[in-house]
Amino acid sequence: MKKRPLILVTNDDGITAPGIRTLIAVMNEIGDVVVVAPDGPQSGMGHAVTINETLYCNEINVDEGPQKEYKSSGTPADCVKLAVSEILDRKPDLCVSGINHGSNSSINVIYSGTMSAAVEAGVEGIPAIGFSLLDYSWNANFNPLKPFIKQVAQNVLENGLPDGVVLNVNFPKNETFKGIKVCRQARANWVEEFDKRINPQGRVYYWLTGKFVNMDKGEDTDEWALANNYISVVPVQFDLTAHHFIQKLNSWNL
Amino acid sequence: MKKRPLILVTNDDGITAPGIRTLIAVMNEIGDVVVVAPDGPQSGMGHAVTINETLYCNEINVDEGPQKEYKSSGTPADCVKLAVSEILDRKPDLCVSGINHGSNSSINVIYSGTMSAAVEAGVEGIPAIGFSLLDYSWNANFNPLKPFIKQVAQNVLENGLPDGVVLNVNFPKNETFKGIKVCRQARANWVEEFDKRINPQGRVYYWLTGKFVNMDKGEDTDEWALANNYISVVPVQFDLTAHHFIQKLNSWNL
Repeated sequence: MKKRPLILVTNDDGITAPGIRTLIAVMNEIGDVVVVAPDGPQSGMGHAVTINETLYCNEINVDEGPQKEYKSSGTPADCVKLAVSEILDRKPDLCVSGINHGSNSSINVIYSGTMSAAVEAGVEGIPAIGFSLLDYSWNANFNPLKPFIKQVAQNVLENGLPDGVVLNVNFPKNETFKGIKVCRQARANWVEEFDKRINPQGRVYYWLTGKFVNMDKGEDTDEWALANNYISVVPVQFDLTAHHFIQKLNSWNL
Repeated sequence: MKKRPLILVTNDDGITAPGIRTLIAVMNEIGDVVVVAPDGPQSGMGHAVTINETLYCNEINVDEGPQKEYKSSGTPADCVKLAVSEILDRKPDLCVSGINHGSNSSINVIYSGTMSAAVEAGVEGIPAIGFSLLDYSWNANFNPLKPFIKQVAQNVLENGLPDGVVLNVNFPKNETFKGIKVCRQARANWVEEFDKRINPQGRVYYWLTGKFVNMDKGEDTDEWALANNYISVVPVQFDLTAHHFIQKLNSWNL
């Protein structure tokens, strides 16, 4: 009989978010679960780490279940570091992050706390997956995602992932999924629209808002898949070298 | 006569840091400079953006010079977004970020606020470069870097950069540079060592510390170049798709 895998669960919406509670429920079916997650929302934190402030980390019980749980004052990347260095006895067999309330497809991957936790785990040599649902609502229905999450996680546990690669899984908002599609990251960006206001003291301030613009019409992209009701799976790497430009750059007068 | 280029300058150590003051001085020699930088240190912020808090941005004069300067309460990525959307009349010809006090070589690129600003500019279609010096000291001598910074910036202004690529330039601590070397990102990571302490109220807290471990012995890496007194230039991309794994992933039972 094979030993049950050790699974680390984290997110960026905070340890009480419905998304992570769903993810914990699914992971309890396939392994021994330890949760180390932020004590509050950390969305848009990118790959931030806490170096100029103190970090707290305490065991808590959010709800019933066999999992052990810890909440931390840190970012998602901090949570993974704390789990690996301070909490777990051994390297986990899998790290899952999410389910994020909102999209991490396309360029959103670089702003995403959810994906930064998965990438941090990948950097530490742990197979990792980030899950996100294209629905910002706290009351989104996560139940239809469960069998797909289990399937992707079990595939990663069985097949492993290459060194330097983690998975970015996004679910469309519509629950009648057509299936899973392996994709590349669409070339898209946010066109910022700052909402300029005046505070009660007469000082100008801004809220960051924006419009997502997809410049990429490819049918092999995550945006295409999601728009067509497929679940997108993008393999993500953290060697950021633009290898294709090295030769040309060598011809410059540097 | 060619129009002088419009250059956006930012960083993550804050607008008064000696590193950015040096960068401004160099850029004043080659273009019209607008500075939009954080009002305080933002190191380790990764690609964080401010979505749940208000943003302030005010014109200031830090020192003499032809540049226009604005300080912001936001992250480095916020500063670029603010500059492009709210401050500049047209898209800048170049965005430079730094000079960071400390290394952004190898895996540090994913934690780096300096590089996140360059990447954000790249996402917005602006040729961009991040500069870093492997010396954390506030009193580091930035003067020997000046001619090299000018050379790299002028090359980018003349040649442009491919869509989706920005440059990550790191200077070794030793000032007798052997020259510039185009490199790939070394495969390395941080092995965390949390410093566990007890606060005056008896509660456990942590400081994040760690040891940088380079697993990559390649002589074409940034770590090799820097250890051998070369200035490293790594072309960095923000399409994070692990294209080499897509075919294999398609053979999974998903």
